[in-house]
Amino acid sequence: MELLKKLCEIHAPSGEEISMKEFILKYVNEKMNGWKSQPVIVADQIQDSLVLVFGKPRLAVFAHMDSIGFTVRYDNKLVRIGSPVIESGFVLTGRDSIGNIECKLKYDEDTKEISVDYDRIIERGTSLVYKSNFREDHEFVLSQYIDNRLGVYNCLKLAETLENGIIAFSCWEEHGSGSVEVLSKLIYEKYKVSQALIADITWVTEGVFHGKGVVISMRDQFIPRQSYIRKIMDIADKAKIKYQLEVEGSGSSDGGYLQRTAFPFDWCFIGAPEDGVHSPNEKVHKGDIESMLDIYKLLFEKL
Amino acid sequence: MELLKKLCEIHAPSGEEISMKEFILKYVNEKMNGWKSQPVIVADQIQDSLVLVFGKPRLAVFAHMDSIGFTVRYDNKLVRIGSPVIESGFVLTGRDSIGNIECKLKYDEDTKEISVDYDRIIERGTSLVYKSNFREDHEFVLSQYIDNRLGVYNCLKLAETLENGIIAFSCWEEHGSGSVEVLSKLIYEKYKVSQALIADITWVTEGVFHGKGVVISMRDQFIPRQSYIRKIMDIADKAKIKYQLEVEGSGSSDGGYLQRTAFPFDWCFIGAPEDGVHSPNEKVHKGDIESMLDIYKLLFEKL
Amino acid sequence: MELLKKLCEIHAPSGEEISMKEFILKYVNEKMNGWKSQPVIVADQIQDSLVLVFGKPRLAVFAHMDSIGFTVRYDNKLVRIGSPVIESGFVLTGRDSIGNIECKLKYDEDTKEISVDYDRIIERGTSLVYKSNFREDHEFVLSQYIDNRLGVYNCLKLAETLENGIIAFSCWEEHGSGSVEVLSKLIYEKYKVSQALIADITWVTEGVFHGKGVVISMRDQFIPRQSYIRKIMDIADKAKIKYQLEVEGSGSSDGGYLQRTAFPFDWCFIGAPEDGVHSPNEKVHKGDIESMLDIYKLLFEKL
Repeated sequence: MELLKKLCEIHAPSGEEISMKEFILKYVNEKMNGWKSQPVIVADQIQDSLVLVFGKPRLAVFAHMDSIGFTVRYDNKLVRIGSPVIESGFVLTGRDSIGNIECKLKYDEDTKEISVDYDRIIERGTSLVYKSNFREDHEFVLSQYIDNRLGVYNCLKLAETLENGIIAFSCWEEHGSGSVEVLSKLIYEKYKVSQALIADITWVTEGVFHGKGVVISMRDQFIPRQSYIRKIMDIADKAKIKYQLEVEGSGSSDGGYLQRTAFPFDWCFIGAPEDGVHSPNEKVHKGDIESMLDIYKLLFEKL
Repeated sequence: MELLKKLCEIHAPSGEEISMKEFILKYVNEKMNGWKSQPVIVADQIQDSLVLVFGKPRLAVFAHMDSIGFTVRYDNKLVRIGSPVIESGFVLTGRDSIGNIECKLKYDEDTKEISVDYDRIIERGTSLVYKSNFREDHEFVLSQYIDNRLGVYNCLKLAETLENGIIAFSCWEEHGSGSVEVLSKLIYEKYKVSQALIADITWVTEGVFHGKGVVISMRDQFIPRQSYIRKIMDIADKAKIKYQLEVEGSGSSDGGYLQRTAFPFDWCFIGAPEDGVHSPNEKVHKGDIESMLDIYKLLFEKL
Repeated sequence: MELLKKLCEIHAPSGEEISMKEFILKYVNEKMNGWKSQPVIVADQIQDSLVLVFGKPRLAVFAHMDSIGFTVRYDNKLVRIGSPVIESGFVLTGRDSIGNIECKLKYDEDTKEISVDYDRIIERGTSLVYKSNFREDHEFVLSQYIDNRLGVYNCLKLAETLENGIIAFSCWEEHGSGSVEVLSKLIYEKYKVSQALIADITWVTEGVFHGKGVVISMRDQFIPRQSYIRKIMDIADKAKIKYQLEVEGSGSSDGGYLQRTAFPFDWCFIGAPEDGVHSPNEKVHKGDIESMLDIYKLLFEKL
């Protein structure tokens, strides 16, 4: 879990994914000689996104690197990056030209105004994220930004044994999109791949539970082509992978952006469920992390 | 109206358009030798969409195949596919691995929860649609899914005499889009066509009436280039086609998706008006069905 | 300011930008021989948009030509084009086949219905805009449609000395988009340019003031890649350009549309601030108009 901890600690809200890209690039360059197959690294003309191409790909996985957070507006007021949970007392960190910042969030229930308590005015446009606080026991991991550093972690673990496939690390999933649109063009036009998986984190709900296995999402706000979902379910059933089915009417992911591109991608969201979504205390079951990696390995073989 | 009845009865909500595609493919293959001109059929690399290319096309019509409906969530709770009318007692049908399903919708006004009354738990992810109930008299047709099986019907009738033009059957119009985006790329890049019509069903309102002719929509939530609309109005005026003009501030169609692609399409929504929109009782005037076909034939000649 | 006045008076709401395109084409053809460099004019296959390509471009500016306004529905009722300020008594102008129209807006607070007071029924689909009323003193300009005829003005002034760069005049910014999507494809694929500026008008707020210089927007509803914004700030700092930083959580521009295309554009909104946004009385400081042009000249040199 040391790698996951490191990933969760990287300051990279939407629009500032560059630190994640650099971390992953460094990691891949250090590790890939020990991997079963060495990927081609695509890092240019895709802004802060990053793509690893292994062998002859038929399937691509998208994992977003960005996190939710806040941008400092005027007089230490904040606006949201994505949809973070807002609670007075949450500790935020960041950096402006004057120095490192650690401050407390203040939320005014009446005016709905979000601000921070700090002893000086933070520079306009400074981004703040939840302070790092990674915790684990034998059963659970609890941390800021499990969503989606766990998706990234899953892909880096998958990379160790992947022979044919594409791993795409995307930006702006939490806020506004604009990365999957670029990546899908590259992946479809250059590599002729139109099957996709979305490695991201979903919700514990009345139908989805901790420790019951990875979640295959049949739909959320968007509805992927159902024949593709059924194909994935069949593969998982035959391999006796432990999984849960999710059906939601709301929520979205890189899959929703992919759905609306000019490229005929089939996609399926597959990830571990968490509670404390978009708070500093996102909690995920270690068994679900394992079954997430299991199904990804399987699907890159079989799809 | 036998063909329209059959089309209305096909189970194909957004994400499961495959049955419509297969029906149309079979129909076209059976009938096209009797048509004035035989189309090239494009069915690959466009998921469950389908395109017929006649002669040297200058104009494309889009008709969406998908319908609204419901997805079963947990414990026979439902989430919406598109925006169906919700009313307790509506009869829904579908099929899961256990067998065929016919059940009644239940709507709880207080909790806003939608569910079905059924004697067993329906499998997660099963889609349900309004039960088939096609009715007609000498003046009107009344059925589930006039929207947009009538648009499809119109295109299949148009196909009988079409010499130059493209008919595109799209998916996901009712929910999330993702098909027109792919089709527009194909149609613009491969066939150099950038003029479009949207064959779909609109609303009877305080300005649009049953039996007063097909509707040319000048705008809805989206505003197509007005010079193109005026050109169409001129052609219809000269030919003395009976039509009504619609101006709305809301509502959308495949035209809205087309508007936002990277391809410079002009588009105009042209279709018969109905009441009972998105209910099991969509009602359309037979005269308006006729004038819809008339204007499509005319525009494929003149545009 | 004579050119700005003329631009503000052109009837060209979203969907009817053709008059702006024709005006600019005529202006460019008349003036460009006196310019430092003569652009290639691209006007085909991009609907009513227009592109000027100077020398070897590395940077593109987008300025939208369309304005907000109204479409006449039935019985002199109106629906909005974009998000105009609604106030009873505002004078609107337009033209239908019967003749020129000048009428007064009526807003019913209870029914939220917008209509016009006029002595005959205006034809369906007729567009109406705020009546021209351009005013200036030594310090301020006050007019309908400063947003975004000032952005267009800025680009036409920039054109006089521009040697390398692209000026793109877009449509539908105020309503539904569909132009930047087409232009970005052209600009990226044909000219290999992926750096963009958005020449548009922003808001005077608690952090942004009249007369304090052009605004560099760090984010609005969308978050551009922050490293690009920082690069622009550095260039402006070194050149000692007078500017203000904006940070917003809402509001959008052509930048938001550009963000979501399949092309890896970096973008930054840079424009003068106004108050009276989307009313007949948009007010902008003349000094801010000057510093807007200054920073554009600088950035086309340095980026």
